[in-house]
Amino acid sequence: MKESIQKAKILVEAFPYIKQWFGRTVVVKYGGSTRSGENELRNTLQDIVLMKFVGMKPVVVHGGGKDITRATEKLGFRSQFIDGLRVTDLPTMKVVEKILGGKINKQLVDLIHALGGRAVGLSGKDGAMLQASRVKSRSGKDIGFVGKVSKVNAAVLQSLDREKFIPVIAPLGLGKDGHAYNVNADEAAGAIAGALKAEKLVYLTDVPGICQKQKDPKSLLSTIKAKEVSMLIKKGIISGGMIPKAQSCLLALKQGVHKTHIIDGTLPHALLLEIFTPQGIGTEIIP
Amino acid sequence: MKESIQKAKILVEAFPYIKQWFGRTVVVKYGGSTRSGENELRNTLQDIVLMKFVGMKPVVVHGGGKDITRATEKLGFRSQFIDGLRVTDLPTMKVVEKILGGKINKQLVDLIHALGGRAVGLSGKDGAMLQASRVKSRSGKDIGFVGKVSKVNAAVLQSLDREKFIPVIAPLGLGKDGHAYNVNADEAAGAIAGALKAEKLVYLTDVPGICQKQKDPKSLLSTIKAKEVSMLIKKGIISGGMIPKAQSCLLALKQGVHKTHIIDGTLPHALLLEIFTPQGIGTEIIP
Amino acid sequence: MKESIQKAKILVEAFPYIKQWFGRTVVVKYGGSTRSGENELRNTLQDIVLMKFVGMKPVVVHGGGKDITRATEKLGFRSQFIDGLRVTDLPTMKVVEKILGGKINKQLVDLIHALGGRAVGLSGKDGAMLQASRVKSRSGKDIGFVGKVSKVNAAVLQSLDREKFIPVIAPLGLGKDGHAYNVNADEAAGAIAGALKAEKLVYLTDVPGICQKQKDPKSLLSTIKAKEVSMLIKKGIISGGMIPKAQSCLLALKQGVHKTHIIDGTLPHALLLEIFTPQGIGTEIIP
Amino acid sequence: MKESIQKAKILVEAFPYIKQWFGRTVVVKYGGSTRSGENELRNTLQDIVLMKFVGMKPVVVHGGGKDITRATEKLGFRSQFIDGLRVTDLPTMKVVEKILGGKINKQLVDLIHALGGRAVGLSGKDGAMLQASRVKSRSGKDIGFVGKVSKVNAAVLQSLDREKFIPVIAPLGLGKDGHAYNVNADEAAGAIAGALKAEKLVYLTDVPGICQKQKDPKSLLSTIKAKEVSMLIKKGIISGGMIPKAQSCLLALKQGVHKTHIIDGTLPHALLLEIFTPQGIGTEIIP
Amino acid sequence: MKESIQKAKILVEAFPYIKQWFGRTVVVKYGGSTRSGENELRNTLQDIVLMKFVGMKPVVVHGGGKDITRATEKLGFRSQFIDGLRVTDLPTMKVVEKILGGKINKQLVDLIHALGGRAVGLSGKDGAMLQASRVKSRSGKDIGFVGKVSKVNAAVLQSLDREKFIPVIAPLGLGKDGHAYNVNADEAAGAIAGALKAEKLVYLTDVPGICQKQKDPKSLLSTIKAKEVSMLIKKGIISGGMIPKAQSCLLALKQGVHKTHIIDGTLPHALLLEIFTPQGIGTEIIP
Amino acid sequence: MKESIQKAKILVEAFPYIKQWFGRTVVVKYGGSTRSGENELRNTLQDIVLMKFVGMKPVVVHGGGKDITRATEKLGFRSQFIDGLRVTDLPTMKVVEKILGGKINKQLVDLIHALGGRAVGLSGKDGAMLQASRVKSRSGKDIGFVGKVSKVNAAVLQSLDREKFIPVIAPLGLGKDGHAYNVNADEAAGAIAGALKAEKLVYLTDVPGICQKQKDPKSLLSTIKAKEVSMLIKKGIISGGMIPKAQSCLLALKQGVHKTHIIDGTLPHALLLEIFTPQGIGTEIIP
Repeated sequence: MKESIQKAKILVEAFPYIKQWFGRTVVVKYGGSTRSGENELRNTLQDIVLMKFVGMKPVVVHGGGKDITRATEKLGFRSQFIDGLRVTDLPTMKVVEKILGGKINKQLVDLIHALGGRAVGLSGKDGAMLQASRVKSRSGKDIGFVGKVSKVNAAVLQSLDREKFIPVIAPLGLGKDGHAYNVNADEAAGAIAGALKAEKLVYLTDVPGICQKQKDPKSLLSTIKAKEVSMLIKKGIISGGMIPKAQSCLLALKQGVHKTHIIDGTLPHALLLEIFTPQGIGTEIIP
Repeated sequence: MKESIQKAKILVEAFPYIKQWFGRTVVVKYGGSTRSGENELRNTLQDIVLMKFVGMKPVVVHGGGKDITRATEKLGFRSQFIDGLRVTDLPTMKVVEKILGGKINKQLVDLIHALGGRAVGLSGKDGAMLQASRVKSRSGKDIGFVGKVSKVNAAVLQSLDREKFIPVIAPLGLGKDGHAYNVNADEAAGAIAGALKAEKLVYLTDVPGICQKQKDPKSLLSTIKAKEVSMLIKKGIISGGMIPKAQSCLLALKQGVHKTHIIDGTLPHALLLEIFTPQGIGTEIIP
Repeated sequence: MKESIQKAKILVEAFPYIKQWFGRTVVVKYGGSTRSGENELRNTLQDIVLMKFVGMKPVVVHGGGKDITRATEKLGFRSQFIDGLRVTDLPTMKVVEKILGGKINKQLVDLIHALGGRAVGLSGKDGAMLQASRVKSRSGKDIGFVGKVSKVNAAVLQSLDREKFIPVIAPLGLGKDGHAYNVNADEAAGAIAGALKAEKLVYLTDVPGICQKQKDPKSLLSTIKAKEVSMLIKKGIISGGMIPKAQSCLLALKQGVHKTHIIDGTLPHALLLEIFTPQGIGTEIIP
Repeated sequence: MKESIQKAKILVEAFPYIKQWFGRTVVVKYGGSTRSGENELRNTLQDIVLMKFVGMKPVVVHGGGKDITRATEKLGFRSQFIDGLRVTDLPTMKVVEKILGGKINKQLVDLIHALGGRAVGLSGKDGAMLQASRVKSRSGKDIGFVGKVSKVNAAVLQSLDREKFIPVIAPLGLGKDGHAYNVNADEAAGAIAGALKAEKLVYLTDVPGICQKQKDPKSLLSTIKAKEVSMLIKKGIISGGMIPKAQSCLLALKQGVHKTHIIDGTLPHALLLEIFTPQGIGTEIIP
Repeated sequence: MKESIQKAKILVEAFPYIKQWFGRTVVVKYGGSTRSGENELRNTLQDIVLMKFVGMKPVVVHGGGKDITRATEKLGFRSQFIDGLRVTDLPTMKVVEKILGGKINKQLVDLIHALGGRAVGLSGKDGAMLQASRVKSRSGKDIGFVGKVSKVNAAVLQSLDREKFIPVIAPLGLGKDGHAYNVNADEAAGAIAGALKAEKLVYLTDVPGICQKQKDPKSLLSTIKAKEVSMLIKKGIISGGMIPKAQSCLLALKQGVHKTHIIDGTLPHALLLEIFTPQGIGTEIIP
Repeated sequence: MKESIQKAKILVEAFPYIKQWFGRTVVVKYGGSTRSGENELRNTLQDIVLMKFVGMKPVVVHGGGKDITRATEKLGFRSQFIDGLRVTDLPTMKVVEKILGGKINKQLVDLIHALGGRAVGLSGKDGAMLQASRVKSRSGKDIGFVGKVSKVNAAVLQSLDREKFIPVIAPLGLGKDGHAYNVNADEAAGAIAGALKAEKLVYLTDVPGICQKQKDPKSLLSTIKAKEVSMLIKKGIISGGMIPKAQSCLLALKQGVHKTHIIDGTLPHALLLEIFTPQGIGTEIIP
């Protein structure tokens, strides 16, 4: 009986959020570091399937850094570096495509199906979704097939949405030269969220969010305003891999995304709790 | 942290139901006996508002027996009885209309608005929704404006539904003579559920359901098949006010309602728990 | 044969109006004074049913002053007066709701059904249609549940219209406190006409219109321009109960209503003749 | 005042018909004999324009016998006759097309425009509407370009209807050989009514209808059942030009037309009175 | 095999045009001089039917000068001339209508049907498509029923288009006086193209286009800019019957037509080659 | 000029096919053997892009046998064989996915983009399109992740079609166990064509079709009836890799595909010529 009352309370609390988010798009960047364990993977994808169940439109963008590194090493590639950046030559790019499009993407699609959802695996090249322009190293040298998102064409996503599929997207871009380009997954997620005018953009990471003192969860900054970001980068509070995430958040906010979140994806059901309970977790960056 | 896991678990459990019931109609007969306390009233109506929030289509049918009795007594009416049934003459009928349509119905509409929902108060006469034919006493004597539902025209309900209103219906019928007729609320709820091909018809009562031994919750019958009902009436296990409920359930099932429920509306959030958790409460009558 | 020619002539005259008004909304304020006789009532409601038949969208707003006074007197209420205004305390308000929503509204709905139309009885609280704010006496004292229309939400009306129902509305408003408020019916009609961008707003009264010399039909002003109204009030030509009507007309015109009319509802089929023949009756107030 | 009451009475009487016929198709065969006078022509076309105003879908099929005869005589054609039927050779057919499509049809379209309607003049060849097969004389001899309707393709009419045009149709058919064929206008009207599943098919003639004693209006048969027609032909009560009309009525009824009428089109506003007043005129043939 | 490669090459070349013109409107003025031979007629109309097959929306406007002259001569009309212009009195106008609407128009419709298309023959009066105002001679004298297009109402064309018919239009205009007016066919085509915001307006003539040296195909001007037209008229390079064509092109371009063409309609399949191959023929006038 | 006439003739010939196939689905199985040269690849994909241009709905299913063999060999896998069939164990299956989904599929998508089309690369697992059940060797032994299409869910394809994308599908199936299964590409193409009720199913091979005497193009069977197939297999005329193609044709025909074709994809623009010219190439199998 007490348990019943407890259950009812949680549902009473959650239901208004369900109404609020109905039909809204949430782009989830699902980083490699949070996909390590089988359990974490299941929990996160289950949250995404449930979001779809209650009428939201989740869109998953995955990365693949570690797997790519492992694969190139296995094949005995010796990477060239310019200005500290690995050059993505044609053979490397072929491996990138196979790993992102042929392995990780397929694995996520499979698991979503196993959890009762319906997924469609895509790369940013499908339907010319992510158009990429070649980037150079800081010193202006060519570093191969590394791209920057220059335009997003969301028609494929919109068409799949009408049939209630969950799109799972590998961060590959289509160059003007017709070649595939490797695109930073954080940036891809932000650009897609912006093009879809998503309600939310959520980065699942393996840290609690942006902390005043690095890795000290007690110093977590719950809310950061967009205009404070550049100052926090300067102070070094936002640093390393958190920088492209924060910058993609800014860009997405500018294009009309309502809220962006950087949360700890290793907490069980972090996504569900962030979205359907009043106690937010992690850091939100707001306009 | 533990609390978070608990919350997540309940949401994970509840969400598939939300998908399952999305867009489905649930007719709730909300009897007078369960509307006694202010708290019970709020809890029940909140459940109905939440059902709407998560995409269901609740339809409320209320009764008004006690208030009518109180009102006629206050006005000093001396009721005539034939075969044990109170004769509803014209002056009584006018009181019935004022109480049902002008008091109880309005009170429920007000409270739903206060809880954040949008309600529209109707009587069965609106849009010629409940067409009634005059009934007689068992010995064939006229007992006034007492009717039986002869036809349901659900167009008003369907039209309101499209705009996301919760209809709240007073059990008045429209006779072929153009007069208002007093209709049994249990019967009205069943007939409306049938006409709407509702997913569920739920009777909120002040008992735990149908019990083998009357009022002994331990002897509760969780599931009754439609074909067992007549036998249970003969044996006296279904008796008194439970008979019209059970019979309306049968009729509704015949017209395509999927499941019917008789539950204890005095339990906090009984409706929510019945519909969104795997552990059913009360008695369900199934085809 | 001669009769045939006469008939044909009238139809030839009326049909262009039918084309002109097809699909247009006409809000009819149906005052208590014109509802006195059974015959007048039938004639007026028949006109409204016929308007619906030929494709117009009539919306009926009724008052109830006399019946409320009679009912409160019967119950022995002793009304308190402040600045000459009757205080509407909670018990009085409950009577108001019962009379407006449980008696008059139901009676009009019944009669429309008897005349072959399809009506739905509503109060301004349904679907939060008429949102009311509390008004005070001129000296700033509280006079109870008396409201002023602060906002109109016409969604219920629009949804019912699609199913071809005639809405019949009791002038009750929903306060921000969740309470029902007594709203002036003339004002309610004007506000609803404005919200619906009605083609016409027609006040059915028991006088021929606005007359230069009060109650002298020969001095009837056929057409008044909006900007002349305030001057006519100053001069006392518009006075008494005609003032709220004229002011509601002004407000409705401002919100986009095309024409407003004050006509004698006791003339048989006044409404029909006003709308479908070239000879207007009563007074029209135009932008 | 008395006049007002009279007017109101006629409108009250007519309006239910307007509701009844709203959106319904009425095919009017407008014979040459009834188009003689300028006034008759205006009256009839005005009725058709008014029918459109109140939401009906009139379709006009005209003939042209007399004009064709006159034109061929003028050009000095000497017609050949086989089995008493005039042979329509190619030169004659060219005249037929010019008169039907280039003169009469255009004249009706012009007049409808002058009366405030919107007409589109068509021949049965447009959009392959009337497909015709060649007929022979009774003795099996070829009589030229005289056709029988073998199929109706109503797509042009339906497409024009959506834009609220009144189609005016010349009775020309399209042969399988690509040639134009002269088709009996009565038959064409019946076939079109059948294909459109028209509500009514009305023949405007210059007699009061089908009379027991020819030309004695007092012996008019108001209603004839379909199964009685062949007997009335045998008895000679239906004779001459009335035979193809009656037979086309039968065919149309078989294809789903609800009622067919043969009325006196020379009476002013005969069409309007037939359709919008309870007193029918002329003869109706019913299933 | 070589032939196959040749075929494939032509299709590969043509298909992008099919995509480009899909759903686009092309107004074709089909002058009398190019309709002389049976073969030319068939070739041109076949091109139009094929344009419809591949998803374009051709609209045909025809003239009739020569046939009208021949017909009036045959009837022995002695035309009056003012300022060198033939006066179109009422009897002449009646002949014009019969020839344009009852002969030429019907002939084109017939042939389109024979070639597998679906045509609907119209005059500019149908649906009040071409509204005409009376023009006078240069010296200001009345020259009868000669009109200038004052307004185009394209609703009939749009409604027919939805059902995939090819409209074939005779250049008659509807005067404000309800009379038919003779309208220059070149002007009518331009006005219709403008109203439809056509992709292209094509004049089929019997010359190669606009030539620097008259009738010398080698001096053909392939492309003329709109602003150059008046200069070319002054220089006499554009002269005679080419002037109204060029001016109608200018007007059409102003109203949003993308390109206008003056081509030699006597070349077999000139229309097809102009539209579906990269080598244009004739002269194009562009904005 | 002669060239123009030739061009026009080919277009006149091709255009009726464009009308005929408009909006129709054609499933093209694009086998590895025909993808060998860069030129062949471009020609074939250009044909597919052009089919889309003229309103058809091409769906591409590709294989990957040779690339997979090459890749496994490179990785030093030593394949096990049972009953002559290679066992697809988990590591092999991972390679299959990478090659089909991450290499070949991506290459085709890239090239279609380069040719001006819009493609979306999918595997049969996306949207649970191809559901597969595990097959065993003839002797009933397990041969790993080799599947048979048990059900096709075409929703993804239909959703992409609405946005005008060309789907390019890798023949992977989704097992009930959630694993990816290797599915025969010929079979996959046939099953998809059947589910889409395609107009045509075309197998692009490197032989001229089915020949009476193997590899003798002069003995090509142009048309085979479905019922003749089993006899031709018995006789050995249909043999080897042609058997699954012929059987998939039969299955597709049974499910409503209108015609199936086996043609030589190495001929330049074979697809275009087969579909848009009257001279068919290769073998068609018809119901």
